[in-house]
Amino acid sequence: MTFHDLVVNAERLLADLRDLSVFGRNAGGGIDRASFSAADATAREWLAGRCAEAGLEVMTDAVGNIFVSSPRLEEGIAHHPAVWTGSHIDAVPDGGAFDGALGVIAAIEVLRTLHEAGTGLTRPVRAVSFSDEEGSFAHLFGSSAIARGFGVDQLEAMIGRDGARLAEALPSALTVSLADAAAVGPPPEGVAAYVELHIEQGSLLEASGVPIGVVTGIVAIGGGTVRFRGRADHAGTTPLDRRQDAGLAASEFAVALPALASATSADAVVTTGIMRFDPAGSNIVPGGAEVSVDFRDVELERAIDLGNRIAASASEIASRRGVGVEIEFEETVPGARMNDAVRGAIAGAAAGLGLDAIDIRSGAGHDAQNMALIAPTGMIFVPSVGGRSHSPAEYTRDDDVVRGASVLLRTVLALVRG
Amino acid sequence: MTFHDLVVNAERLLADLRDLSVFGRNAGGGIDRASFSAADATAREWLAGRCAEAGLEVMTDAVGNIFVSSPRLEEGIAHHPAVWTGSHIDAVPDGGAFDGALGVIAAIEVLRTLHEAGTGLTRPVRAVSFSDEEGSFAHLFGSSAIARGFGVDQLEAMIGRDGARLAEALPSALTVSLADAAAVGPPPEGVAAYVELHIEQGSLLEASGVPIGVVTGIVAIGGGTVRFRGRADHAGTTPLDRRQDAGLAASEFAVALPALASATSADAVVTTGIMRFDPAGSNIVPGGAEVSVDFRDVELERAIDLGNRIAASASEIASRRGVGVEIEFEETVPGARMNDAVRGAIAGAAAGLGLDAIDIRSGAGHDAQNMALIAPTGMIFVPSVGGRSHSPAEYTRDDDVVRGASVLLRTVLALVRG
Repeated sequence: MTFHDLVVNAERLLADLRDLSVFGRNAGGGIDRASFSAADATAREWLAGRCAEAGLEVMTDAVGNIFVSSPRLEEGIAHHPAVWTGSHIDAVPDGGAFDGALGVIAAIEVLRTLHEAGTGLTRPVRAVSFSDEEGSFAHLFGSSAIARGFGVDQLEAMIGRDGARLAEALPSALTVSLADAAAVGPPPEGVAAYVELHIEQGSLLEASGVPIGVVTGIVAIGGGTVRFRGRADHAGTTPLDRRQDAGLAASEFAVALPALASATSADAVVTTGIMRFDPAGSNIVPGGAEVSVDFRDVELERAIDLGNRIAASASEIASRRGVGVEIEFEETVPGARMNDAVRGAIAGAAAGLGLDAIDIRSGAGHDAQNMALIAPTGMIFVPSVGGRSHSPAEYTRDDDVVRGASVLLRTVLALVRG
Repeated sequence: MTFHDLVVNAERLLADLRDLSVFGRNAGGGIDRASFSAADATAREWLAGRCAEAGLEVMTDAVGNIFVSSPRLEEGIAHHPAVWTGSHIDAVPDGGAFDGALGVIAAIEVLRTLHEAGTGLTRPVRAVSFSDEEGSFAHLFGSSAIARGFGVDQLEAMIGRDGARLAEALPSALTVSLADAAAVGPPPEGVAAYVELHIEQGSLLEASGVPIGVVTGIVAIGGGTVRFRGRADHAGTTPLDRRQDAGLAASEFAVALPALASATSADAVVTTGIMRFDPAGSNIVPGGAEVSVDFRDVELERAIDLGNRIAASASEIASRRGVGVEIEFEETVPGARMNDAVRGAIAGAAAGLGLDAIDIRSGAGHDAQNMALIAPTGMIFVPSVGGRSHSPAEYTRDDDVVRGASVLLRTVLALVRG
């Protein structure tokens, strides 16, 4: 047989995707599986077990990235630059069963299919599951460690969404030191190519009736936290005109953001996902208020411009309302263009399977944007029903899952041939 | 000697007030002492110790109200209607050292002074510390139990600010059953009068340069929780015009409230002290948002009208933004007029001490409004520096503390004479 005739095992693929989705499932049907949580640990254990059953080898690096390989396929070529494919198995709070999980399970299915077919590949193929893509500690954490690296001081400073320090969570989950984690980087031999299968998380494919999206690029993303500081006062005895209400400043700020994004470009979006008042008593005028800001645009320049307008708006509102403000935005992440050769491989794979494909832009950040810094990189999108994502309602039909994995297999084969 | 010559022990009063303020003190200097918390338990223990040292008797009822009496003063008259004076020792989150605490410590100092002077009173005097005035479980909890009573089902349903059930917190703190708590009510012999010393929590006395306020009445208070229900979506891939953002609806609602209050009356105030988004991820459009609302006005009718306008505004914003809304307001508490005879006793006491006094309205709720349902009731206010309250910055000068306690002693003596 030739590798070109290979097909993925659809039943096994769909069963694995379902099985993974039980780890961290909450009462409302959503998935709570932050990296280095208890649910993440059991998911990692299950994944390692599935790989072992298939005769694959599993290695976890010091930031929690999982690499899966086939000893049989790598005989004699283990130190050649490999083709990597994967995604992540962590989820946002109350997230869905497809974001990330699809790309990891499909990557393992592709590797398993190749492993079963036997030897003959000219480059190693590795399935990857990057840790903490959803940024419980840092957005795209695992792939950032590989492509850009972290200093021990940066790792020391990371605080999780639940308030825990990475310096405690990481060593206890992986038995590593922060020095080990800081040493993580790209493999010395380089990476031949990276390709990631992911759900669209939007509704363009569904609206177009097209099963495959060939990603052209990933948007630039900026944001961080804005903290307003007013004065806590008694809710009953402090006249409205004598208050320094940090909560009202934060609320007015949140309401002002969408218009700032729309004024920047038709592609820009902005989101306030977290708002917290302090001291948070119903009969106390809030003395403090914390607001998260997430803004994105296709063009880095425009995203940076939007960030500046947002900061200016926070300052204007704070000064008009007589409260203080502290703006803590991380550096805006540039996004990435996808590699032409990899895009060509994906488009060719789809065409070879008789599947329509269109070019599409990613509004979400992905590990692929880090991998694009060190390797020719591409992404395959499959439709999300109703465009829903980061929610328990996230869903991609079985047929689309199998089509995506099939295009991934053919793309990987094309990239192995180089 | 005659009781009329008595003066409070200023040093002992100020020392006790300082000593009480250490229980629940946090790193920022604020006080975290919710009823039935660990800090509350140690404060109760300290208070009982101070009373025992003075030869006073302490009794705690099944909802946590503390009653202090002098066996010597009550010889032969223990079952006559008593004059009660007191306040509460619990605090709002990150609260101050005077709200409530002043009224309890001054009441104990008054009783201690009378106890030391010996027998001769024609009515018992009792110092009272009402439990959970600040509503960790229910606003004015302890005095509500006495004046209005709770059913076991109402007690069963109470959930604390920290998420604990009263049904667990109360029995474990006091070794009582909910049936015991439901049996709490007014004493069979009635209450001769109730008078409460409290800080103003506003700045009218300070601005007027007057040391004593004679409270004329307590404002009506309404409010509760408004929950907006939209759709959680991905922050990067969901266009602004396709979102059902519960957080934006909640923020717009909070911003709209002050103008609704101002349009109702010059006395009306409204506060959003708590705002929480769900699922609270920085890259997730909020699917849910919860907002606390506290509104007050001098006139019950106007307060009810304001509550209706607030509810209508929530519905309008929700419908315009395409999200659901659930409004859960408790019944608006009517406030209370203070008793003319008690007001006269307070004014006479101040005059007898050569202290200026003015009539003043209370913008905050107090246990006195419940006591007004079962006894002739009055309140004495002393100045709050800068009008600050429900905050670590809450402060009343030593001189004003002593003046307030002195007026309280004279008022209690006048009420005992009846």
